[in-house]
Amino acid sequence: MDGGDGISLEQRLGERAARLEATLSELLPESAAPYATVIAAMRYASLGGGKRLRPFLVVESAALFDVSESQALRAGAAVEMVHCYSLVHDDLPTMDDSDLRRGRATTHKRFDEAVAILAGDGLLTEAFTVLADPATHPDAGVRIELVGALAAASGKDGMVGGQMIDISPVRHGLDLAGITTLQALKTGALIGFSAQAGGILGQADADARQRLAGYAADLGLCFQIVDDLLDVTSTAEDLGKPAGQDAEMGKATFVGMLGIEGARAEAARLAESAAERLAPFGARGETLRQLSRFVLERSN
Amino acid sequence: MDGGDGISLEQRLGERAARLEATLSELLPESAAPYATVIAAMRYASLGGGKRLRPFLVVESAALFDVSESQALRAGAAVEMVHCYSLVHDDLPTMDDSDLRRGRATTHKRFDEAVAILAGDGLLTEAFTVLADPATHPDAGVRIELVGALAAASGKDGMVGGQMIDISPVRHGLDLAGITTLQALKTGALIGFSAQAGGILGQADADARQRLAGYAADLGLCFQIVDDLLDVTSTAEDLGKPAGQDAEMGKATFVGMLGIEGARAEAARLAESAAERLAPFGARGETLRQLSRFVLERSN
Repeated sequence: MDGGDGISLEQRLGERAARLEATLSELLPESAAPYATVIAAMRYASLGGGKRLRPFLVVESAALFDVSESQALRAGAAVEMVHCYSLVHDDLPTMDDSDLRRGRATTHKRFDEAVAILAGDGLLTEAFTVLADPATHPDAGVRIELVGALAAASGKDGMVGGQMIDISPVRHGLDLAGITTLQALKTGALIGFSAQAGGILGQADADARQRLAGYAADLGLCFQIVDDLLDVTSTAEDLGKPAGQDAEMGKATFVGMLGIEGARAEAARLAESAAERLAPFGARGETLRQLSRFVLERSN
Repeated sequence: MDGGDGISLEQRLGERAARLEATLSELLPESAAPYATVIAAMRYASLGGGKRLRPFLVVESAALFDVSESQALRAGAAVEMVHCYSLVHDDLPTMDDSDLRRGRATTHKRFDEAVAILAGDGLLTEAFTVLADPATHPDAGVRIELVGALAAASGKDGMVGGQMIDISPVRHGLDLAGITTLQALKTGALIGFSAQAGGILGQADADARQRLAGYAADLGLCFQIVDDLLDVTSTAEDLGKPAGQDAEMGKATFVGMLGIEGARAEAARLAESAAERLAPFGARGETLRQLSRFVLERSN
């Protein structure tokens, strides 16, 4: 996959991830404060890994509207802080009880449960500190729109609501519409924000924003279906976390509903649809179109 | 205590608390969504009790600058959501392990730990949704200043940092400077935000803001010293939560450092200092001056 400038998508993802890592590290400097432990845990939970898919979406969607990379990286760091906080809290013993994440001990295993809860709280809060800072965008109207959109995507009617469904007794008996709603809330909302953030930063028109929202909805659902497929077909070593967890926990999944072949076909359809929605952006949309194929074909 | 309009401070606190309760209930409507449980838990954790000291500070400081009550109540609801989220997470078994709060079962006892963690996450996030909404203030610059100030007061270098110290092994050996820092972070930062919020909403000048910040710093420290005194001198029935917890856990406290009489004298000095800082506001500052006496003399 080549965006026309001789750089493959994998290279571009790697470069962006490295710059995001540097931005996160600057925004969360090491500390000698008497509460340094929670800062160390926030760094542990957010640095040193992950595909950085959400910040990549922010930066690439921002690039469609000539937003400066430093602004986009700050907004990307904010959404990644929210994503990482959600992983820390979801991994807790009273939630998914996961010991392994990105091939390392989860935050509550490396520190303890209390510190992990606080580190998650701190990351969520810090995301809003970052967005509120004029360095993210000189226009207060743009910054407050980012705050409102990130809070909506992350809160009770977004990611928190999705996680609530995921830990509910009803989770096991969901039908296809139910797991689609679950995905839209738990992972779709934040992926949607990420693609929208570029349009907000770039003060894009309504049509462009709607295209990005549609792209993100298709991409997010594709991502989740591939996640379900990988849970069935991969090893823990490939994934950096235990495989086969969904089946073991008796959770309804897209693969369970559609079968492996049916799920693959639906994921492929969604990746194609996502790419088509960006047609009006022409060559500038090529990286995001490539990303939809990458999400479809990823192995971890 | 009479503010000159024939209403005692206790009556005024009660009336403001009732209006804050109505605002919170409107901002967190009951839901029939598949994730309704987390919304019920967010309502349980934030409705039906508490002195509503922080929203009172927002509303009364806003009144100094002729801010509309509906705007002030929204900002007050946001800070109360953050305060209530912090109580829910602090009460968890892995933190303070408290079963009782405001005379009722804590959120994790009424629901379960996972739902309590999510309800706290949801309340924290919702606070930013509320502040980002134009109904809080038509000027985006005012709203983003509220967001930045609330996030700073609540995050790693504020409330989260304070809670980190409070659960640390170092907590037991703190000296007077150490527990003063702990208090400034864990409770002082959010009380400080509350008094500042009126100045932000009212676009007050730097001098007025500085006076409010000084008032809040004195008031917050006074509040904490009185809290320590009540922990030693009250019953669980008075407090609505177990008494004598600090001594039982071997925590360094202001009473332990200063003795009961010394702590009382310091609290009185701080209440006096807080009131004096508001002298330039004249009669308009009377309610906030009364509040400093109320905080000094409260029994729960």
